[in-house]
Amino acid sequence: MTSVTSLFAPVETDLDLLTHNLKGLVGARHPILSAAAEHLFGAGGKRLRPAIVLLLAKATMANQEITPKHRRLAEITEMIHTASLVHDDVVDESSVRRGVPTVHSRFGNRIAVLAGDFLFAQSSWYLANLDNLRVVKLLSQVIMDLAEGEIQQGLNRFDTSLSIEAYLEKSYFKTASLLANSAKATGVLSDISEVTINQLYAYGRHLGLAFQIVDDILDFTSSDEVLGKPACSDLRSGNLTAPVLYTMAEQPFLATLIEREFAEASDFDQAIELIHQGNGIQKSRDLAAEQSRLAVECLASLPPSAAKQALQDIADYVLRRVF
Amino acid sequence: MTSVTSLFAPVETDLDLLTHNLKGLVGARHPILSAAAEHLFGAGGKRLRPAIVLLLAKATMANQEITPKHRRLAEITEMIHTASLVHDDVVDESSVRRGVPTVHSRFGNRIAVLAGDFLFAQSSWYLANLDNLRVVKLLSQVIMDLAEGEIQQGLNRFDTSLSIEAYLEKSYFKTASLLANSAKATGVLSDISEVTINQLYAYGRHLGLAFQIVDDILDFTSSDEVLGKPACSDLRSGNLTAPVLYTMAEQPFLATLIEREFAEASDFDQAIELIHQGNGIQKSRDLAAEQSRLAVECLASLPPSAAKQALQDIADYVLRRVF
Repeated sequence: MTSVTSLFAPVETDLDLLTHNLKGLVGARHPILSAAAEHLFGAGGKRLRPAIVLLLAKATMANQEITPKHRRLAEITEMIHTASLVHDDVVDESSVRRGVPTVHSRFGNRIAVLAGDFLFAQSSWYLANLDNLRVVKLLSQVIMDLAEGEIQQGLNRFDTSLSIEAYLEKSYFKTASLLANSAKATGVLSDISEVTINQLYAYGRHLGLAFQIVDDILDFTSSDEVLGKPACSDLRSGNLTAPVLYTMAEQPFLATLIEREFAEASDFDQAIELIHQGNGIQKSRDLAAEQSRLAVECLASLPPSAAKQALQDIADYVLRRVF
Repeated sequence: MTSVTSLFAPVETDLDLLTHNLKGLVGARHPILSAAAEHLFGAGGKRLRPAIVLLLAKATMANQEITPKHRRLAEITEMIHTASLVHDDVVDESSVRRGVPTVHSRFGNRIAVLAGDFLFAQSSWYLANLDNLRVVKLLSQVIMDLAEGEIQQGLNRFDTSLSIEAYLEKSYFKTASLLANSAKATGVLSDISEVTINQLYAYGRHLGLAFQIVDDILDFTSSDEVLGKPACSDLRSGNLTAPVLYTMAEQPFLATLIEREFAEASDFDQAIELIHQGNGIQKSRDLAAEQSRLAVECLASLPPSAAKQALQDIADYVLRRVF
């Protein structure tokens, strides 16, 4: 199985430059944050979001070079993503992510809040200095959506009346909005047609949803080691995802277990067993496959290029993790 | 002694509307945040920053009404201020502010981080939708400066080599930048001359510095009850302010006490005594008075109005708290 990073070949050197810039930005001027910067932008980060921005930039600029504004947008995208992860880990009290301790568990809440605020601040400053009001609006919407998604997730804990639609909305806010709006902003900076700009938005939206659904499946089908965090941690904290919602529709007893918040000793193991016995995981795979297929369709109007091929392959790759 | 809020008479109804809007914005859609919203925008808030924006708007619009964009700018200013307070209280582990428990001590770190992020996110969304790139840049700079100031404050704890200039720079980042840049943005929205716009910036800058120096004096001269938080808490946490810096120049033993971080039982009380015996507090008063005087000078070119008078009186009022 290819690794996702091998798909980033057309923008490999651009991504290395980006990582170098981000480490320097956070770490150099502020010793207090440098350990956190190494931690955040060092080895292990998949850099999926900036890779997609850079690939879309190449795919839409045809024979021209991508611009410094495209590169800056890729940096902004990664900074907003990282800032929200750091704060989410404080809010969710997560101690491990991608197999390494989170910033708040390693450096404390103080540094985690500071580092996240610094990244949000720096990204809004970079954003303003792109001198493009439309791009400012698109990315401000993302920052709003991330906060909204985190709040909705908090509100809906252990709420068994959650619909698949509400789950997809929350997933849009928490994951897909950043990909969708950065993709759209890339098109705005490339000065392409409105029709194509909207197709880029739809690509990012479908890909982001596929990505989130796949992550939510892996939470049930992978080991702690592969996940780099405790398996089934979403369900344990009451975050009800696609496999749970589909299984509840077939097995109402799962809802009972969730509503009593796994109060009895065997409740949680029983819930996991119900999910593995039923069709919830397969239905979730079908949902992710549909989103991935729609994402690829949105690329149809782009001219052929290595970057376009990589963008298609990424949508396939996402699925292969659960098929 | 008049209270500062009586100086806000020319914009009293505007401020009430603003408070109503902010409470609704944060609280209505999100029960999880509504208690925090009531807490943040309820009784006790001085609303100094939005009052200054609204007064400057009135003072620069002559006979015309202030615009919806001015009102929105006042809201953004208060939201950014409140968001940074909420996160600072997490970073500084403060449990009381203005006599009431802080959001993080009352509702926990989770809600404090969420509420701050929501306010930052909403303010950057409002900001983008003012449709004025110059105003976006001014306020993005503020968000950067607030993060920078909080980081500098963390870096400089118990650092007795701190100069008055470095102290003023940190005070600019933490307090004056918001007043200076919001004042400037008010002028941009009022479409007045560049010369006057820069005078508004200078008014906000000097007023903000006066305000911070006065707060730092009060930390030594007021009781816990008047401050609404434990007195001398800055010194205790190693945040060295004007009275400390001036006293150290006269009394090198104060530096010794600070450098050993008050390790011996009587160190802290001895430090407080040195500060009260020396001229540090008086020199700090002089520094604040100079900043207040400079602030008033910057208003000279504005036409006479009740709003202008209030802006002058606010600069005087700030001083009267320590003279």
